[in-house]
Amino acid sequence: MAMPPVALGIDVGGTKILGALVDDEGTVLQQQVVPTPKEDEPLLHAIVGVARGLLDGAASDLPVGLGFPGLITRDGVARYGPNISLREFPLRARLEAELGRAVLVDNDATAATWAEFVIGAGREARADMLMFTLGTGVGGGLVIGGRIVRGSQGFAGELGHLIIDVDGASGPSGIPGELEAYSAGNAIGRMANHAFLQGHFIGTLLEGPVAPTGEQVTWGALQGVEPAIEILARAGRYLGIAAAGLVNCLDPELIVVGGGAGAAGDLVLDPARASLADHVLGPTHRDPVPVVAAGLGPEAGAIGAAFLAAEEGRD
Amino acid sequence: MAMPPVALGIDVGGTKILGALVDDEGTVLQQQVVPTPKEDEPLLHAIVGVARGLLDGAASDLPVGLGFPGLITRDGVARYGPNISLREFPLRARLEAELGRAVLVDNDATAATWAEFVIGAGREARADMLMFTLGTGVGGGLVIGGRIVRGSQGFAGELGHLIIDVDGASGPSGIPGELEAYSAGNAIGRMANHAFLQGHFIGTLLEGPVAPTGEQVTWGALQGVEPAIEILARAGRYLGIAAAGLVNCLDPELIVVGGGAGAAGDLVLDPARASLADHVLGPTHRDPVPVVAAGLGPEAGAIGAAFLAAEEGRD
Repeated sequence: MAMPPVALGIDVGGTKILGALVDDEGTVLQQQVVPTPKEDEPLLHAIVGVARGLLDGAASDLPVGLGFPGLITRDGVARYGPNISLREFPLRARLEAELGRAVLVDNDATAATWAEFVIGAGREARADMLMFTLGTGVGGGLVIGGRIVRGSQGFAGELGHLIIDVDGASGPSGIPGELEAYSAGNAIGRMANHAFLQGHFIGTLLEGPVAPTGEQVTWGALQGVEPAIEILARAGRYLGIAAAGLVNCLDPELIVVGGGAGAAGDLVLDPARASLADHVLGPTHRDPVPVVAAGLGPEAGAIGAAFLAAEEGRD
Repeated sequence: MAMPPVALGIDVGGTKILGALVDDEGTVLQQQVVPTPKEDEPLLHAIVGVARGLLDGAASDLPVGLGFPGLITRDGVARYGPNISLREFPLRARLEAELGRAVLVDNDATAATWAEFVIGAGREARADMLMFTLGTGVGGGLVIGGRIVRGSQGFAGELGHLIIDVDGASGPSGIPGELEAYSAGNAIGRMANHAFLQGHFIGTLLEGPVAPTGEQVTWGALQGVEPAIEILARAGRYLGIAAAGLVNCLDPELIVVGGGAGAAGDLVLDPARASLADHVLGPTHRDPVPVVAAGLGPEAGAIGAAFLAAEEGRD
């Protein structure tokens, strides 16, 4: 017999909203996906629609957790995100009023990090794990001392905004020299475009008038196209440099890498592992820190949000 | 009547060992200072001598904590440090055998960070604080969720080894582009030497055949010598860049800056505050993170080690 759900988790992404009823082992019992509206009120109502559909028939006290892409205050106000239009939107309060129950609202990558720690690539880690999510941008999350890190205002986990180049150009968020400007899908596309303009063959799909995407570069690299492989390696080296700085500060057991660019696998992770080893303090005097691909699929955010909501309910 | 001591704290520095009996408000009731021997066994015996002197007449179960400059495993083995000769030295086990009681061994900057959090510049912080210590090198520590961060192997807190320059030169630890190569006393001295060789007047004391020290540059800057002021400002800007990356990852309430370069005060901290503001995600959407000078004196490490040992005893 199927386990009952422990919580409803909802992951709000840039293009779609994914809701999932999750059991206590992280199995998705039922899910629903709808497109993400761009404006505040339609977005709220889309989330409410997904929640109501999945809560229909569920226990009236089933915990609900939501992962949202951007800066979320600790009391659930969606404050800012480079890729979302919401500003100072009281997401938790509005959802709780609509659904008539408590809702936990967290950053999406924070939620995905927790899912990876509990049942994914980090399930063997005891207490300390970092996760980078490589997508259009770079996000992430941290588990320290066995607890998810939310920070004082709720804004922790923006690992894409580590500064790795004092003389660097601005990324999409406007921060000069940040990791996101070097290792995100957008950055990979820019590097590929630059290489193409210099006359390097990147792959037939890529030779259009439009800058190639990170996915297209990954496709080229998986076909064995050398300049595409070198571009992914460069993105990986930058990732390893940022990871090394955090390893020196936080000394985690494990680093997990997820997100779309995860498809490139070791084409990104091997160079990241090498530059990590080159930049940690006392490399011969410490256990190496494994860099591994995420273990969960696109439901990670929803599963993590569900787990976090279920634990909150138990506090 | 004086409070009884809650613990003995011992801070092992590069030049001296400072032991202090500390009450539960962090007041130093009695202290002893001896020079730091360079070799393993003489160092151990110097620590034991300080401990025995201060423990004479104290309660037989008085907790003892030690702060040590380098990578210390969670079971108290001194494994490595750029500025110490000890390698794989079982410091805790040897001290416990000599003293016949439990001894807590932590990194020195970790101990100082805890003291600043409990009774120093961070005493108003609720749960999340970072500290940078600017000395010959750059160290640091982190408090997250109200707990000191030790990391999985015991090596957390090496904030001087954040990588801020992907194309950077190696610092004294051999890590390319690390903060320590830009903001430590040694780095400040190097920058001053470079400026002097380019014909800039740094201050009469500094114009010798030997590279000036960070202290000498600070002295020049406090006299109003422009190139010296600019050198400290540059060190501060690099510090702010590293701090911003950590703020984006960890979202602390407060950043404390201590160590010898703290003498330069706002000559370093103002530029650090400015570059921090330039590199945080969504600066207009979050509360600013104050950057403040450490509140405690050179006893911070011993006080923090004592507090950590006293709390360990209560667990």
